[in-house]
Amino acid sequence: MDPSRALRYARAHRKRFVGELADFLRFPSVSSQAERAEDVHRCAAWLARHLKKIGLDHVRIIPTWRHAIVVASWRRAPGRPTLIIYGHYDVLPGQPLGDWRTPPFSPTIKNNVLYGRGAADDKGQLFSHLKAIESYIATSHALPVNLFCIFEGEEEVGSPNLTPFVERNRRVLKTANAAVVSDTRMISAEKPAISYAQRGGLRAEVEVVGPPHELHSGSFGGAIHNPVLALCEILAGLHDHHGRVAIPGFYDDVRVWSEKERDYMAASGPSDRQILHAAKVEQGWGESGYSLYERTTIRPDVSASGIIGGHTGQGVNGVIPSRALAKLSFRLVPDQQPERIAQIFRDHVARSTPGTVRSTVRTMSPIHPALIPRGHPAVQAARQAYKQSFGVPAVLIRSGGSIPVVHTFQNVLGIPVVLMGFGLPDDHIHGPNEKLNLPIFYKAIETCIWYLALASRLTRAAGSQQRKVRIA
Amino acid sequence: MDPSRALRYARAHRKRFVGELADFLRFPSVSSQAERAEDVHRCAAWLARHLKKIGLDHVRIIPTWRHAIVVASWRRAPGRPTLIIYGHYDVLPGQPLGDWRTPPFSPTIKNNVLYGRGAADDKGQLFSHLKAIESYIATSHALPVNLFCIFEGEEEVGSPNLTPFVERNRRVLKTANAAVVSDTRMISAEKPAISYAQRGGLRAEVEVVGPPHELHSGSFGGAIHNPVLALCEILAGLHDHHGRVAIPGFYDDVRVWSEKERDYMAASGPSDRQILHAAKVEQGWGESGYSLYERTTIRPDVSASGIIGGHTGQGVNGVIPSRALAKLSFRLVPDQQPERIAQIFRDHVARSTPGTVRSTVRTMSPIHPALIPRGHPAVQAARQAYKQSFGVPAVLIRSGGSIPVVHTFQNVLGIPVVLMGFGLPDDHIHGPNEKLNLPIFYKAIETCIWYLALASRLTRAAGSQQRKVRIA
Repeated sequence: MDPSRALRYARAHRKRFVGELADFLRFPSVSSQAERAEDVHRCAAWLARHLKKIGLDHVRIIPTWRHAIVVASWRRAPGRPTLIIYGHYDVLPGQPLGDWRTPPFSPTIKNNVLYGRGAADDKGQLFSHLKAIESYIATSHALPVNLFCIFEGEEEVGSPNLTPFVERNRRVLKTANAAVVSDTRMISAEKPAISYAQRGGLRAEVEVVGPPHELHSGSFGGAIHNPVLALCEILAGLHDHHGRVAIPGFYDDVRVWSEKERDYMAASGPSDRQILHAAKVEQGWGESGYSLYERTTIRPDVSASGIIGGHTGQGVNGVIPSRALAKLSFRLVPDQQPERIAQIFRDHVARSTPGTVRSTVRTMSPIHPALIPRGHPAVQAARQAYKQSFGVPAVLIRSGGSIPVVHTFQNVLGIPVVLMGFGLPDDHIHGPNEKLNLPIFYKAIETCIWYLALASRLTRAAGSQQRKVRIA
Repeated sequence: MDPSRALRYARAHRKRFVGELADFLRFPSVSSQAERAEDVHRCAAWLARHLKKIGLDHVRIIPTWRHAIVVASWRRAPGRPTLIIYGHYDVLPGQPLGDWRTPPFSPTIKNNVLYGRGAADDKGQLFSHLKAIESYIATSHALPVNLFCIFEGEEEVGSPNLTPFVERNRRVLKTANAAVVSDTRMISAEKPAISYAQRGGLRAEVEVVGPPHELHSGSFGGAIHNPVLALCEILAGLHDHHGRVAIPGFYDDVRVWSEKERDYMAASGPSDRQILHAAKVEQGWGESGYSLYERTTIRPDVSASGIIGGHTGQGVNGVIPSRALAKLSFRLVPDQQPERIAQIFRDHVARSTPGTVRSTVRTMSPIHPALIPRGHPAVQAARQAYKQSFGVPAVLIRSGGSIPVVHTFQNVLGIPVVLMGFGLPDDHIHGPNEKLNLPIFYKAIETCIWYLALASRLTRAAGSQQRKVRIA
């Protein structure tokens, strides 16, 4: 099917598309906060109405024990390939509020940039696909391929209900040739990228408890172990002086890559300088012997996302707090298993806890690392789709993030996942002032239009190749 | 002057005294919180009215740039000795609120125990003196000694305005034979104690700043130093494996005590078991080679009163925070100088901060350690006052806390400070459910009545001996 009418339609309706996306961003659909459950639900209902409006069939809001999955399909092209399009409509909280220049849930456009929580992760990227679909149906009453759309509301809390959903619907979803996920980044606005690897993840809370009540540090300081300092001592022991994770056994299952693969990465991936520029820091950190790109993709790490204990208000109190809590985030690589990492981490914390305090560890949100065969036709078709819209084919890079569904699609359905990302390194995903550059949004829609056209040439044989998920 | 009529009066009016103390506790006179300034002021006004009501002269509310000092005097006994009575009407915050069984500023009596913030530190102890004074004036229209009363509202924030006040009034205050401060603890309800040493103090905030914004830990984890972990690494380096403070030069000025003094401490002070029992913990911690009593009195330490950074709400976020903050409290001993400790601490943090993050240190509330000559007649008179009310003379112990005014009185006025404490080790000073056992309150009032009687025999010669502030 010739995409030219769809492309013309998309160009003609850009302004309306941006307005609709702003409506989508206005929902504070924060999946991690119980008090936002109603907002998440309202966002799901809005999304379902929108899917109907653009002409998709069988739109359903599938409830889970927490946040609903919104699904739709279009299967009126018998004999043509089938794609799964996945995205997530949930977002992280807007905190820290003080650092936002515009309110996180009041989308604001300045200099052709749309600011708001979810602008890039993932509402903006998800919406690019919807507008591509609309552009075909509005102009041709048809799509070049069959589609299953799966949009979940729990990606930011580890997708606890998505794997069961995919497993329940495995028989029908297995008929897809590939799944398309747009929740990753390009290298720059001029250098589009497809991710062929995702790190896995594991989240953990470590709590250290000392005395049952706060104590006066005059009366007891020097004689009773301070739980804040005890927690710091445990966390400081997570890395050695070479930036390596010091949990015994942590690297046991980490895959060693060939020089050839590392050369490919060096040629295709971002430089240290580009990564530091995106982070706006002067100096890198971490495991010696690896580039910053390697450290964030083929090497695992553990990071602290938060810590709290004792008196945190104005001034300094003369107390020994009773407890302290840290929140940690592991990023894992092939062939680490989140379940095994959880176990060795628990053991390590138990061993590192002195008899003067008690510690507890809670782990959650295990995500398996994922690899996608770079040469798969569904991936190569995506490279060409970028070439049509951006002028250059997408490079193939590894991503340091973790999208739980990638492993699920590959493992449960046996189909490859095409990670067509449209984020920019400075989009402040998960940070304040998250943004989407509107020119990128327009090109993303065109890329999706091209991809639907190019994917129509995929064959089932290609789809079934994917079980050998190994990179040469 | 015979104290028997005053004692009878005090016994007859116990119930009213407790009600008045409850009124005093009801003011949330939290000096460290700017939003409580009005409450602090209302508490000062109530206290001033009360001083007038019990018959003291020259009651004044002396404004400072922050919280007022309430003063009064009674100088109608020419030729008799003069005492300064010091106390503080400000309190710590009621946090953590959740751990209080009754609201901190709604004083509640259960089983002869009065619960509420300030019950022991210091409103309850301060009030014991007022009720002793009232008992004399109500029954004899006179006191056995002359008095200056100085009640400040900034003790919990390091008494920044008290030394200037004492210096301004040095000429008149120097005429006192001794100062009495009731803001310390007994060993147990049956074992009263007078403190002859106070640790000094210094408070500090350490802030570590990494990237200017929160970063996605998938994209950057492993390549960018996490400010929470960097702060933990700095704090973990504050102590070595022997529980000693690892800041170079920290022990340079710490006085080494003779075996004789340490034997005296072992015989007079609380045992390890008693200290652990009061803290409700199983196992002690700290510098090897010293008893827990020694670790909290003749040995210095640094403790963390709070820490905060990154996402601290529900769940775990995949972010690298931008900054993290810790609040520290030093306890210092003779002959450490808070100013020098501030300097070497700054230097140490600067040296310990890797190039991957930036750190800043703020220090505040310096307090000098203080020693009082155990044999001074004003101290010995206090021991006998306890004997009259508790049946046994007070033992002389060291205190681990820091009362800024002690050093000021000794240094500026050249008079000894008698630390007649009435707190119990399990009064939860600075913690939730702070309390005052009412039978102790009644005995405290009687001890103060006896002390006024016994202090009438002090001579000026004794008062001027005090410059040799050395313990034999």
